[in-house]
Amino acid sequence: MSVPARRVLAEFIGTAFLVMAVVGSGIMASRLSPDDVGLQLLQNSLATGAALVALVVALQPVSAAFNPVVTLVERALGMIDTRTAAALIAAQFLGGLAGTVTAHLMFGLDAVTFSTRERTGTGLWLGEVIATIGLLLVIFGTVRSGRAEQVAFAVGGYITAAYWFTSSTSFANPAVTIARTLTDTFAGIAPASAPGFILAQLAGGAAGYALIRVLYPTLADSPAAIAATRKVLS
Amino acid sequence: MSVPARRVLAEFIGTAFLVMAVVGSGIMASRLSPDDVGLQLLQNSLATGAALVALVVALQPVSAAFNPVVTLVERALGMIDTRTAAALIAAQFLGGLAGTVTAHLMFGLDAVTFSTRERTGTGLWLGEVIATIGLLLVIFGTVRSGRAEQVAFAVGGYITAAYWFTSSTSFANPAVTIARTLTDTFAGIAPASAPGFILAQLAGGAAGYALIRVLYPTLADSPAAIAATRKVLS
Amino acid sequence: MSVPARRVLAEFIGTAFLVMAVVGSGIMASRLSPDDVGLQLLQNSLATGAALVALVVALQPVSAAFNPVVTLVERALGMIDTRTAAALIAAQFLGGLAGTVTAHLMFGLDAVTFSTRERTGTGLWLGEVIATIGLLLVIFGTVRSGRAEQVAFAVGGYITAAYWFTSSTSFANPAVTIARTLTDTFAGIAPASAPGFILAQLAGGAAGYALIRVLYPTLADSPAAIAATRKVLS
Amino acid sequence: MSVPARRVLAEFIGTAFLVMAVVGSGIMASRLSPDDVGLQLLQNSLATGAALVALVVALQPVSAAFNPVVTLVERALGMIDTRTAAALIAAQFLGGLAGTVTAHLMFGLDAVTFSTRERTGTGLWLGEVIATIGLLLVIFGTVRSGRAEQVAFAVGGYITAAYWFTSSTSFANPAVTIARTLTDTFAGIAPASAPGFILAQLAGGAAGYALIRVLYPTLADSPAAIAATRKVLS
Repeated sequence: MSVPARRVLAEFIGTAFLVMAVVGSGIMASRLSPDDVGLQLLQNSLATGAALVALVVALQPVSAAFNPVVTLVERALGMIDTRTAAALIAAQFLGGLAGTVTAHLMFGLDAVTFSTRERTGTGLWLGEVIATIGLLLVIFGTVRSGRAEQVAFAVGGYITAAYWFTSSTSFANPAVTIARTLTDTFAGIAPASAPGFILAQLAGGAAGYALIRVLYPTLADSPAAIAATRKVLS
Repeated sequence: MSVPARRVLAEFIGTAFLVMAVVGSGIMASRLSPDDVGLQLLQNSLATGAALVALVVALQPVSAAFNPVVTLVERALGMIDTRTAAALIAAQFLGGLAGTVTAHLMFGLDAVTFSTRERTGTGLWLGEVIATIGLLLVIFGTVRSGRAEQVAFAVGGYITAAYWFTSSTSFANPAVTIARTLTDTFAGIAPASAPGFILAQLAGGAAGYALIRVLYPTLADSPAAIAATRKVLS
Repeated sequence: MSVPARRVLAEFIGTAFLVMAVVGSGIMASRLSPDDVGLQLLQNSLATGAALVALVVALQPVSAAFNPVVTLVERALGMIDTRTAAALIAAQFLGGLAGTVTAHLMFGLDAVTFSTRERTGTGLWLGEVIATIGLLLVIFGTVRSGRAEQVAFAVGGYITAAYWFTSSTSFANPAVTIARTLTDTFAGIAPASAPGFILAQLAGGAAGYALIRVLYPTLADSPAAIAATRKVLS
Repeated sequence: MSVPARRVLAEFIGTAFLVMAVVGSGIMASRLSPDDVGLQLLQNSLATGAALVALVVALQPVSAAFNPVVTLVERALGMIDTRTAAALIAAQFLGGLAGTVTAHLMFGLDAVTFSTRERTGTGLWLGEVIATIGLLLVIFGTVRSGRAEQVAFAVGGYITAAYWFTSSTSFANPAVTIARTLTDTFAGIAPASAPGFILAQLAGGAAGYALIRVLYPTLADSPAAIAATRKVLS
């Protein structure tokens, strides 16, 4: 199998496991701790963050965006070409759907159940803008400063936290958002609420891209980046 | 003591501690938080994941599969020979039994009590298939891409998450499954339910092996990565 | 944008996200788990620590003190000049305010609401002294011994723990303290209580600085340590 | 200040912060979550493990055993001389006492209150033996295989887990045990129960030492691993 095909497969598998982590842990949490929604979100957020650490460590050397906004920013930064980006994004959406269906089958639910949970309003949309800016800052800040081997831990920590500090519980990912419209469980989002979330994520993506260009104008091997890094040690 | 004997001992000790972590933390959790099963699983999953980080960091340079499916895949990939695999797997099963007995004695229980907790059904079996595929992907994806020193964190994160996102709470390990038949506590599984779980784990093992061959057809190809990987595996 | 301007921006953005993590997760926690303050603090402390891991990993190569006391100690150690320190500290205070306002808007609250939560007394002030000494010890001990790439994990772990083991829940940061006067939510502190906290933080800063000078009189001076440090940056 | 004096100070400060983390988080947990002892132990165990990550990362390059049994094993392995070991152990006991007193003063309690909590019985003593064997295996396995820079994470993970999987909640440290006799709070142990715990820890220390000699008969034998290990230990 050629390298691009491996990358497409890695995005499919990784996004499927990510959505399984989000949806499956939400089902388990609401079944086992029915009396405290905060405890459910704690279980859901720790499971998601821990899964991200594992998935990014294992799949990053092949391909591990799992997120169309991240892939679009990689395209905008010239890291990949348009055709590759399109293929990876398609794999992310399909992987997300596979993740929801697999989670449902594991837990004895119908393969697909449309969510009835509305998530709308300016507060939540601002939450998604902020969540996406932060995610991009964490991913590309880490990579562009030459710490690619720490991305998994930064992303896992960020998402665990952002479940709590953003009002929207930080979807920050269009593929995961679509996948979550298909589950009428803890992690679900009503299909009618998805466009608002995705538009907010794209807006956050544009803002995050601009911020990255300002904070990290070049990859780590520029003299400026090296000098800035050296500062920390002196 | 020759290197192979050290490896056998490391598998025995490591699997014993892993099963102690699973069984012991389950006993403690159900005693101290009797009113919320979800809180018990949170305690159980965090303790198991944290123990795995420690055990894999400390024992990986000797031998740290702790899992017959992992050892079988190592054999299939040509990393070890058949006799070594057989010895390691025997040590894993014996270590698991020692872990259950030790946990029971620490908590003042009879050395062995057969579990009465049935765990059956296609949903749970699918959970074990998925759990095992994911575990193999995380372990071998990490090692084969030259990140062997991060395996402990990836595995610890994965298992913590998979307790939550798989319907079966992710046993994913035949030696641990057998050891858990011998404890009529939180982590137990009725002996009659064990064959179904183990068959599902083996099926997941076969699927995971195929996936690894596709995603990581070769070891990481930089000389440093290969050297690092080889050192850990030898 | 020149390097110093990037540093100012990084301090602004990073402190804003840190305060969002503190304030936002406190709002979410008290809304979702209203019956158990300890569970709220667990959610709040894990979110804050996890956010710190992400923010420090991503922003450290540009600038990631997020804390005037830390910046003052950097100045005292000769790592930065006075003008840079002043600019970074200003950015931290402004970033903190932006963080509170953004958290409020995300959660549908007024932009600013003065806290009514009094936090005074010698026990709490001692808590802040201890919390700040420990934070400085962790940051500068790690950096000065050539482990700069592990600062994020050390700081994240320390703050998660210090929320619990200090009576004051470890503010340990004047910019964050001021930002928390502007939120009448879980993480708030009454404006009248802020001066006592900040004085205690400055006292802890002086004590921490002295301790660092004794424990780490020089940068890691063995050739191996220097080589290891350089390797991370190269 | 000469290097040995720095080491003594590091052991004093580090053990004081470790005991503060244990005792202080126990006080906070029992005050804020009075209705669920399991939730208290979760808060206590996560705070302790997170503090250990920070303290070991920051202090390991100076000295970071914080535990007389660990120091005794270092002596038995020839890593330090008898006089140094005695000085470090004295600092650990004194640091532990300082930690309890400081925690009490932060939380508005009398400086010292003898614990009335009995902890006796063969199950608990076996728990301490197992806890100490595991701790030594994790520390020395990690260091002797050339992964000294990961000790902090391994130890933090191990202790978090061992709070749950050992019946004794894993004191595993004579200096911390003595310090915990002086606090009639969540983490306390009645003075009359301390000798049994300490004897069990010493027995576990002897068994752990033997196990390390078998599993890791030599230091990691690559030059880089040896250099890295020696650097940390020197």
